[in-house]
Amino acid sequence: MLENILSKAKSLIEEITEENDILIDATCGNGHDTKFLASLTGPFGKVYSFDIQDDAINNAKKLTQGMTSIQFIKDSHANAKNYISSNVKAAMFNLGYLPKGDKTITTKSESTLKAVTQILDLLVPGGRIVIVVYHGHPNGKEEKDDLEYFLSTLSQDKAKVLEYRFINQKNNAPFIFCIEKAQTAES
Amino acid sequence: MLENILSKAKSLIEEITEENDILIDATCGNGHDTKFLASLTGPFGKVYSFDIQDDAINNAKKLTQGMTSIQFIKDSHANAKNYISSNVKAAMFNLGYLPKGDKTITTKSESTLKAVTQILDLLVPGGRIVIVVYHGHPNGKEEKDDLEYFLSTLSQDKAKVLEYRFINQKNNAPFIFCIEKAQTAES
Repeated sequence: MLENILSKAKSLIEEITEENDILIDATCGNGHDTKFLASLTGPFGKVYSFDIQDDAINNAKKLTQGMTSIQFIKDSHANAKNYISSNVKAAMFNLGYLPKGDKTITTKSESTLKAVTQILDLLVPGGRIVIVVYHGHPNGKEEKDDLEYFLSTLSQDKAKVLEYRFINQKNNAPFIFCIEKAQTAES
Repeated sequence: MLENILSKAKSLIEEITEENDILIDATCGNGHDTKFLASLTGPFGKVYSFDIQDDAINNAKKLTQGMTSIQFIKDSHANAKNYISSNVKAAMFNLGYLPKGDKTITTKSESTLKAVTQILDLLVPGGRIVIVVYHGHPNGKEEKDDLEYFLSTLSQDKAKVLEYRFINQKNNAPFIFCIEKAQTAES
């Protein structure tokens, strides 16, 4: 069976990640991806997990008790460079709102683009940013359009940008952008 | 590294194909995909390979000498049902013109859609049609748009339609549609 969106998003990270890698969960949410990333990199790796909401970080901390590689950061992913200097292997984004949380608090174009730009700089050559785009909420279409325009104009010398999408699904089904930094790009 | 378009097109077929399967090369061209399909299904499988041009079939026959599973059919893929009755595991299309051939002879919307519709009927549940869309030639944009509209309106109950595309490439780079017939669909 063709891999569905959530499974493919994980596979795209898993394919390139090794123990002890530095990883980013750019949208901590309830912590499911943070837990997944921490299990990949192991106890001596590092996962930076960003969220602006206390609820998200508290839920994620409960879910990941005992996983010592995780550093939770209560700040916008748009400030990633304030906390991380280089050598990131992979990063995940789940755009939209906190599941079961306040649906009016969503990721937004400006900060999403800023975060993607910063994290792309932080990636090692061959590193990946995987973005699951949820665009059914009110700001979602604008964020999707802005992101798509931004990514479609990224230089091929800098990165490849893959779109993985099921085109015959209803209700603004989520899809994936995967940005892979060029082997020859500066890290 | 993220799989490129031609490699991914092959992987999507290879993942589901077993020895002795019935396969279709809907656009024989110079025979490279026909050879690939014949190597997957083996001497006791079956590959139907369609092309409307003598040059294509002659070139492909030379390339695949000794591969007894191949039946070349000099007719439009739009008439697939005249030659095949059922149980097809997978089919490949490379849209556009014959490489190194007459660039004015290209696949076209009407026959492409007819072929896809017929072959989707012929597929077993879980079977796939992989289409590499070359859309830089004069008819290419119309064919791409018509195909995209047709596939985006296919019922989810009948099939999933995946788009796999690098969005920051120049010059109308080719991309993939992969149609996977539902497990519950009639074959």
